[in-house]
Amino acid sequence: MRIAIDAMGGDHAPSLIVKGALEAASEMPGVRLLLVGDAEQIKTHLGAQVPPNIEIVHADDVIGPDDEPVKAVRRKKSSSMVMAGQLVREGKAEAMLSAGNTGALMTTGLLVVGRLEGIERPALVSMLPTMDDVGVLALDLGANMDAKPEHLLQYSIMGSIYRAKMNGLNKPRVGLLNVGTEAMKGNELTKAAYDLLEAAPIHFIGNVEARDVLLRNCDVLVCDGFAGNIMLKAMEGTAGTLFKTLRDVFSSSLLSKLAAAVVMPKLRLLRKKMDYNEHGGAPLLGINGLVFKCHGSSDVKAVKNTVRQAKLAIESNLVASIAAEISRK
Amino acid sequence: MRIAIDAMGGDHAPSLIVKGALEAASEMPGVRLLLVGDAEQIKTHLGAQVPPNIEIVHADDVIGPDDEPVKAVRRKKSSSMVMAGQLVREGKAEAMLSAGNTGALMTTGLLVVGRLEGIERPALVSMLPTMDDVGVLALDLGANMDAKPEHLLQYSIMGSIYRAKMNGLNKPRVGLLNVGTEAMKGNELTKAAYDLLEAAPIHFIGNVEARDVLLRNCDVLVCDGFAGNIMLKAMEGTAGTLFKTLRDVFSSSLLSKLAAAVVMPKLRLLRKKMDYNEHGGAPLLGINGLVFKCHGSSDVKAVKNTVRQAKLAIESNLVASIAAEISRK
Repeated sequence: MRIAIDAMGGDHAPSLIVKGALEAASEMPGVRLLLVGDAEQIKTHLGAQVPPNIEIVHADDVIGPDDEPVKAVRRKKSSSMVMAGQLVREGKAEAMLSAGNTGALMTTGLLVVGRLEGIERPALVSMLPTMDDVGVLALDLGANMDAKPEHLLQYSIMGSIYRAKMNGLNKPRVGLLNVGTEAMKGNELTKAAYDLLEAAPIHFIGNVEARDVLLRNCDVLVCDGFAGNIMLKAMEGTAGTLFKTLRDVFSSSLLSKLAAAVVMPKLRLLRKKMDYNEHGGAPLLGINGLVFKCHGSSDVKAVKNTVRQAKLAIESNLVASIAAEISRK
Repeated sequence: MRIAIDAMGGDHAPSLIVKGALEAASEMPGVRLLLVGDAEQIKTHLGAQVPPNIEIVHADDVIGPDDEPVKAVRRKKSSSMVMAGQLVREGKAEAMLSAGNTGALMTTGLLVVGRLEGIERPALVSMLPTMDDVGVLALDLGANMDAKPEHLLQYSIMGSIYRAKMNGLNKPRVGLLNVGTEAMKGNELTKAAYDLLEAAPIHFIGNVEARDVLLRNCDVLVCDGFAGNIMLKAMEGTAGTLFKTLRDVFSSSLLSKLAAAVVMPKLRLLRKKMDYNEHGGAPLLGINGLVFKCHGSSDVKAVKNTVRQAKLAIESNLVASIAAEISRK
């Protein structure tokens, strides 16, 4: 099993990416890691003792965070990201991961690795935090701004298979993000999608509301990228503002500082729970291979966790299962 | 100046509606209040001493919370809500308010009072809470699920005039709800609306994000009803869940209960600040008269506040100003 790692993408590349790869290599000796990027720099961070399951694939170029995605992927053929995608396309790696430019990574998935037949829109899948730490898989949270009912249908199928294969859920509950739980609620998109989801080979539980997502009202949350992103940012913003105000309340007097000392450890846990960025890699579903996005600020642990996710996705035949279900329709 | 009050709509009708009217009548002796509803019941709640500026307009029927809006408004001509709308249409009242069925009230505005010429979609306007207690006027938060770019343009004009006339803001900052602040962000709707808002006679500050609304990133927030409602419920849900968890943290030990006693008064203020329902009536803009929606759970104070809002709207010629600006285009 071979996993390609874009060693040059992300805020802490290549140092923490290489360190993460080292930890993953030691923890998962059966996985061969292909570190794609500037060979000299990678060697420096690898150190003297290179594990036998790490290999360097030299790449001259890098796609930066401000590069225009489609242009960059088309022109920078020898960038670490595009070369990692090329390894997946050619079957020289079963999966790739990158903490680099998100748009460019989606484009690499689409143009270099290639779309699965029958899929109209690949989706970047994210795990939303919930209070019980289990999480809700949401697609899409902003990769594709506009969606047609058929896209939401495909999201629901891909999300269901992902949760079944990757998290062992038996009948993952699929919810459609909406303004109310009644069947007739919503805009033209959700009304049309509702009928499609009802007829789909999934466990559709109907419309769900943004206010209950933190309480894990479903296992797979389906929405268009615009509404999903608005929801995500409203949640983040409200949590952030409330925590900031709490800090102000706690630091307003000596007595409240003492009160803070008592409850702060638990509040910090709560803050962490709400942190969208704490969670692992996000797979790009609907393409003919495995591409995982790590957050730009990914650290050693995040890289290692994403390698573990990729390994599980390879072992569970995720892509083939999605391809089979989509072609069956 | 005459304001019609639907005495029969809302969870606490007619008792608290009538009590609110009594307080408003005493505080604003220049306003004549027409209480529309079952005369017997209204008399009971008015008591022996009826102020000279309160008048009863008997209505046989009531539109209930579960009535289908359009059907109810068409059939129940002698309901308190429709009769109050009829008073505005005939010029026998300058404004009306109701705490009843929201859909039916919007339909009353559209079909009984009538749309302003040139307006395609009237909007129900709400004040979102902000940390500094000033608030952001948002339209639309769910009255019209789908919107065209031209609707968002009209929302922005109506919202700007409302904030100028009602809150004395000189150049209200109009923001377009979006997934990022850059000009090219968003879905097809927001991209097209962006260009229209840039050319409009308003103070357009560009795209704004849901995460900053609590920090009052604009004075008028423009969005389609679906996205606006998703944002609102995500904010409510996150705040509600966090406050619930805080309560659990504080009650987990004797020490944390003592800590709670120190900071709870301030946290309660914060909770209240975040409560969308605490705020006053919501005007329906874009119709040929003044219609205000009070929340279904409105109490005496909410009714009185909404009468005060209606009075200010009449005095400031709100409807005529909107009509003039829309016809000017």
